Amino acid sequence: MNRDPAWVLTIGDELLRGEIIDSNKSFFSERLLRLDIETTRHVTVGDDPEAMELLLRLSTESARIVLVSGGLGPTRDDLTTEVVARAFGRTLRRDETTLQRMRAYFASVGREMSENNAKQADFPEGAEILPNPLGTAPGFMLELEACLLFCTPGVPSELYRMMDEQIIPRIAARQLEGRAVRATLLRTFGLGESTLDRELEDIARDDHEISLGFRTQFPDNLVRVVVRGDDPNTAERRLRQTVQVIRDRLGLTVVGEGETPLEEIVGRLLLERKHTIGVAESCTGGLIAHLLTELPGSSAYLLEGVICYSNESKIRELGVAAEALEAHGSVSEAVVRQMADGIRRRAGTDFGLATTGIAGPGGATSDKPVGTLWVGLATERGVEARRYQLLRDRSRNKRLSAQIALEWLRRSMLGLELPDETFPRMKGRTG
Amino acid sequence: MNRDPAWVLTIGDELLRGEIIDSNKSFFSERLLRLDIETTRHVTVGDDPEAMELLLRLSTESARIVLVSGGLGPTRDDLTTEVVARAFGRTLRRDETTLQRMRAYFASVGREMSENNAKQADFPEGAEILPNPLGTAPGFMLELEACLLFCTPGVPSELYRMMDEQIIPRIAARQLEGRAVRATLLRTFGLGESTLDRELEDIARDDHEISLGFRTQFPDNLVRVVVRGDDPNTAERRLRQTVQVIRDRLGLTVVGEGETPLEEIVGRLLLERKHTIGVAESCTGGLIAHLLTELPGSSAYLLEGVICYSNESKIRELGVAAEALEAHGSVSEAVVRQMADGIRRRAGTDFGLATTGIAGPGGATSDKPVGTLWVGLATERGVEARRYQLLRDRSRNKRLSAQIALEWLRRSMLGLELPDETFPRMKGRTG
Repeated sequence: MNRDPAWVLTIGDELLRGEIIDSNKSFFSERLLRLDIETTRHVTVGDDPEAMELLLRLSTESARIVLVSGGLGPTRDDLTTEVVARAFGRTLRRDETTLQRMRAYFASVGREMSENNAKQADFPEGAEILPNPLGTAPGFMLELEACLLFCTPGVPSELYRMMDEQIIPRIAARQLEGRAVRATLLRTFGLGESTLDRELEDIARDDHEISLGFRTQFPDNLVRVVVRGDDPNTAERRLRQTVQVIRDRLGLTVVGEGETPLEEIVGRLLLERKHTIGVAESCTGGLIAHLLTELPGSSAYLLEGVICYSNESKIRELGVAAEALEAHGSVSEAVVRQMADGIRRRAGTDFGLATTGIAGPGGATSDKPVGTLWVGLATERGVEARRYQLLRDRSRNKRLSAQIALEWLRRSMLGLELPDETFPRMKGRTG
Repeated sequence: MNRDPAWVLTIGDELLRGEIIDSNKSFFSERLLRLDIETTRHVTVGDDPEAMELLLRLSTESARIVLVSGGLGPTRDDLTTEVVARAFGRTLRRDETTLQRMRAYFASVGREMSENNAKQADFPEGAEILPNPLGTAPGFMLELEACLLFCTPGVPSELYRMMDEQIIPRIAARQLEGRAVRATLLRTFGLGESTLDRELEDIARDDHEISLGFRTQFPDNLVRVVVRGDDPNTAERRLRQTVQVIRDRLGLTVVGEGETPLEEIVGRLLLERKHTIGVAESCTGGLIAHLLTELPGSSAYLLEGVICYSNESKIRELGVAAEALEAHGSVSEAVVRQMADGIRRRAGTDFGLATTGIAGPGGATSDKPVGTLWVGLATERGVEARRYQLLRDRSRNKRLSAQIALEWLRRSMLGLELPDETFPRMKGRTG
């Protein structure tokens, strides 16, 4: 039989009631792709032993890899382990090491372990236990005749870690058959997914050992690069070559490699270089400061922020000239320059970053439509300012404006050219 | 055969590659619960006609309602309509009204309609067309022997609207059998889900015509109330009674009815009452201002914000006394009071709202652990300040702190008691 590469199952009534959005399935599938393994089915069932058993049988008969999340908790509703044991004719065995570890955990937080928890130390006979450093429920792997079955808890942080540390290495070890796979993610900002696809399409077309994929994390797009080779060294070398080809083509659009978001990339640069910054926000309404303070230790660089929605506050707090506001309006080059310069002087920082714009839906004029954005950056070398034309949606405009401002900071610190007025070239830009 | 109430299917390779997180399934299921219909299966398959056909057959043989999203676009990969036609032995018919509407749409945006788009006007014979006011692809309903099958586009905004305007009324019309169902959502802030469950559990237990459910939208918890009755008036009256019972029990924890988030509830109150506000943020780092400026028209109330991470900026910008900082530290009652008062005076607003705290992971001392928060609110009646103890996670602490500050504003405007020091009583509070 021609088996599917992988199925992903999630278990829990809360998922079928729509109480939480199930991000575990997309996480599992994205990680499998980095091993060059495609998922062909996602299925969710409730805490219903009959439905679970049927699904476990069907999936393990259909796919070479089955990943299951959920149903390993301590409650009556958590049935995964016992249903797996029944479905595959295994008895349940209590693992003493796991039990002791659980007792020690409860003792360390000063609580008595309830007898319900003890069942989390039960595993189907023959299962390999997968440690869970973040919670009480370990996972397990069962090697069936033509299928590897992995069960993990449903808590995202726990299963993310178990996937990377326990599951991926086990799949990789069995997968190879003399082949190796290496993968990475490139974070891009400034081009839409269809443009990226067009720019890069020949790379995977001309070389069947390379696969490219895309994932959107508004306003960024992530490019996933997967490269196969005869051995790990070859695969790794070819991955580096491919990343270089992509970086050469996309230029400054690539803002980083990996999952680190732009605000963290920028925050780390500020920390490393011991730079300080003040921000003066109008249309972004505090979002730039909020993003810059998500990183622990951000008080070392973000000394001060001002949200000056009113003209009065622009004049009073930032020293913007009333004449400039009158002659050009608050969304103008003159004003954004004075805002950037004003916050830098007032806060006594290396950088002064400013935004003013029309986030929408109100406030537009004939020459300043919704989506108009001015960014200004003051440094010891002077003030730069540029105008951009963004989207129609208020919330997305705020997010996109903040990202453009952060990208100015990144490029400025790295001595790179600032984004020109046609930036960002994204789908939906004209509506 | 005993049929399942509902299955939800989503279609698209991008879902199986984990490129986007599929929130359509939880949306569909949550909406069905408001009709008292439980979903028993979520399944996702790729753009693969064989897998789709098998799944369409299986689901319509298993469930009374099948909701499908995706695969109605104009590309070669969009196969839902033709696979549905094949699976149920229908021919495809082109709908001239739909075609004309599509041509008119393309003309209105100044573009030529491509021939690919024309297939979006094809429907299986006997299908009822479901208009899509937000996009080019209409959906359709097929009434099978014992199953209603609905197909919608995968774009969330489009399917949300079609679910509420087209699908729900059709299901409700067929569902009744002399019965009516009414539902609503209560937004709560300040109690964890398990506490809510305990407070309310007897309501649904003692009356089988009532169902309660929960949905987390950190830091809020939504309580879904579903009430059945012999006719619409009875059901509506009993729903109102039940809502009142819940409001009486939960008191100020209920911040609103429906999906409107707290920042919008607060923003609308500020607009209605023509109040103005200035915010002085330390540990929330701009997040309060960001939330308050998500609502269009927020420039009418938010006149100014200051993010004063450094002691110097607290002194310079808000007139906080150096002595207070020295004697009590920046995370203290004295400082938060001076911050709130300082921003109110400087911005000349009705309200001055301030936060200072230890978001973590660094900065803690023995008497000010991670999660310490001070909130201050200045009004014409004076300044109030209180201390709270939150969580260990930086990002969640910022969000929770901002929410507490917004809740101060809401309660202050409505003349309600401010949250006491034991607020919020949420799961995970101690880690």
